[in-house]
Amino acid sequence: MTISRIGKLVVVGVGLIGGSFALALKRSGAAGTVVGVGRSRGNLDAAQRRGIVDRSFALDQTWTAELADADLVLLATPVGQMRSLFAAMAQHLGPRTVVTDAGSTKQDVIAVARECLGSALPRFVPGHPIAGTEHSGSVAAFDALFRDKHVVLTPLAETDPEALARVADCWTRCGAVVRKLDAARHDAIFAAVSHLPHVLAFALVAEVAARPDADECFAFAGSGFRDFTRLASGHSGMWRDVCLANRDALRRDLVSYRDELERVETLLAAADGDGLLRLFERARAIRDGWLERQSGGEEV
Amino acid sequence: MTISRIGKLVVVGVGLIGGSFALALKRSGAAGTVVGVGRSRGNLDAAQRRGIVDRSFALDQTWTAELADADLVLLATPVGQMRSLFAAMAQHLGPRTVVTDAGSTKQDVIAVARECLGSALPRFVPGHPIAGTEHSGSVAAFDALFRDKHVVLTPLAETDPEALARVADCWTRCGAVVRKLDAARHDAIFAAVSHLPHVLAFALVAEVAARPDADECFAFAGSGFRDFTRLASGHSGMWRDVCLANRDALRRDLVSYRDELERVETLLAAADGDGLLRLFERARAIRDGWLERQSGGEEV
Repeated sequence: MTISRIGKLVVVGVGLIGGSFALALKRSGAAGTVVGVGRSRGNLDAAQRRGIVDRSFALDQTWTAELADADLVLLATPVGQMRSLFAAMAQHLGPRTVVTDAGSTKQDVIAVARECLGSALPRFVPGHPIAGTEHSGSVAAFDALFRDKHVVLTPLAETDPEALARVADCWTRCGAVVRKLDAARHDAIFAAVSHLPHVLAFALVAEVAARPDADECFAFAGSGFRDFTRLASGHSGMWRDVCLANRDALRRDLVSYRDELERVETLLAAADGDGLLRLFERARAIRDGWLERQSGGEEV
Repeated sequence: MTISRIGKLVVVGVGLIGGSFALALKRSGAAGTVVGVGRSRGNLDAAQRRGIVDRSFALDQTWTAELADADLVLLATPVGQMRSLFAAMAQHLGPRTVVTDAGSTKQDVIAVARECLGSALPRFVPGHPIAGTEHSGSVAAFDALFRDKHVVLTPLAETDPEALARVADCWTRCGAVVRKLDAARHDAIFAAVSHLPHVLAFALVAEVAARPDADECFAFAGSGFRDFTRLASGHSGMWRDVCLANRDALRRDLVSYRDELERVETLLAAADGDGLLRLFERARAIRDGWLERQSGGEEV
């Protein structure tokens, strides 16, 4: 079953992630028909024009009739929408249909899957591709998005090994490196390295915009500010959902981060140049070492 | 005098900024001989091999003898070194030698120039190119670094208009867009859009590195984390100096930023999805508008 072709793929949420997954599988020859499902007719039409999907349904149409003979369903919507999607799908999934998702948080998605999927739960494989750009919508999709990127799968105790293998195989065909992780560990790690930086970027833009001299600040802001705030151009609704879903871990990390900033303020107040230099040198060495390990090979 | 060639340019600190300035002026035909001065013999030799400088002196050599017939001297060292450089230079500058700098803070550099330069003060033009990468040293220099980037000049009341014009002309020949600004305004603006983001990036790397699960966090950190923390690979000593020089403005901005983070924590604690969405949408719209204005034309 692993290597078998995905004769029919249903993608719910044909945005950057869902659209790129469909494109990559189509181009690799691994997927036959792709059915797109989404909220916005305009986005679906654009996806069809680009050859990402073969046909498409708005959420208020009878899309669930497409599920019975689907080999794989990918949910690539903001995580806040997954409860109603699982609920709508549960009764319509075929006996061999595997379901996966691309949500940035995993414990919340697993919880609603447990509530809604019933006997189909073993064929649900929770996933999270660690890839993206600050752009969204099917127009932003491209087939190389996942190449050499990590995809984290967080299977449940009851997950069917064949379902897991099928999903892992699809991501491998997208060029990704698949890793398994416990869902709680996933959420703790990504609170620190993804959700927190997003919040910090949104907050900095808001903070600068609230200044009386905001116009002048933006007029002189350069490439450092641009890169630092790139995450603040991300999909607002998606990040709202992520922050709510992972809010306990995120709040803990925000508190730790504010403590770290308070330590910097203490160094500044004391004009402690040696202390600042130690902090900056340590951070630089750690980041440069990290970059080197990354470029040295993704297969860690 | 404005359009006249820089027969002899002395660059003190032949790193990313100083080296790129020399390269850009040489390639444009605006500069003749370039003399490099710096702390590290290895860096100067590399600069000479790359054709950035024609000859070079370590700081413990008799480099000040090169100043009398220099048309322009650029100080492109960390700002903490400028007091001793001005003091060493003051007695050796020729009557027509113009001095400028590339420091990221301006009030502190102006203060030490006032202390040290004596009658040469009117020929000092404080400057700050808003360009850079996270790399440093003469190996990182390239002649297009300043193309379409802002260079801020913060002349004093007593600055000679011809000296100002000469420096502005050189930056224009590097492809930059020259703007004038009051030094105090400069420091307030760059605390917000440059110095604060650098501190935030250093602090995030330090914070993640201090976690018990740091290795796992770095193993899964993706391109968002990479871009967000790019500034943390900047030159540690330079940023130590900047933070000390501009510490009052930076401390004020750090306090405001921590308040902003506290507001986010309150929204998270209340699971206020609408409040989070409003914040994220506002930040996204502001950033995207800013990017659009930037690409619409630098000449604002």
